[in-house]
Amino acid sequence: MTIGEFQQLIRDIYLDKDSRRGADGTFRWLCEEMGELARALRKSNKESLREEFADVLAWLVSLASIEAIDMEAACHKYAAGCPKCGSKPCGCEES
Amino acid sequence: MTIGEFQQLIRDIYLDKDSRRGADGTFRWLCEEMGELARALRKSNKESLREEFADVLAWLVSLASIEAIDMEAACHKYAAGCPKCGSKPCGCEES
Repeated sequence: MTIGEFQQLIRDIYLDKDSRRGADGTFRWLCEEMGELARALRKSNKESLREEFADVLAWLVSLASIEAIDMEAACHKYAAGCPKCGSKPCGCEES
Repeated sequence: MTIGEFQQLIRDIYLDKDSRRGADGTFRWLCEEMGELARALRKSNKESLREEFADVLAWLVSLASIEAIDMEAACHKYAAGCPKCGSKPCGCEES
């Protein structure tokens, strides 16, 4: 599934509801999901991790739809390597 | 670009570095990017939004790689509609 197809899928499922809530309310939901991901990382449960990673991605692309951002196009900044140093693998000094 | 291809691309660029930092340090980086996304939402600048949405996604899939989670497979939970109510669009009561 392409990033664009996933964004469209999530748009079809949630955009009406998420648009009514607005960007700030949807960002709050995204933060809740980040909290659930943090908990899954702590417990290191594979099934929970799978669920929470997918949920964070779903809320992220839904928020992007509210802001009219095409996630697939946005991700092209990484196509040629690290956007900062231009290398693959990244050769930036910072950790 | 598929979700799996994007995860592989980010793996090629950052996994060595992100693995050395570990899941907790990489989660902290992801949170920093969430903060930058929050700022871009507040300022409502299209170019910044595009950058920050992509950065959050990049850190998310890199963290998933550290945890050996296949993001493309994980996202299939949404393929048939909302995982909670099973509908497309979502018919869940909660907002």
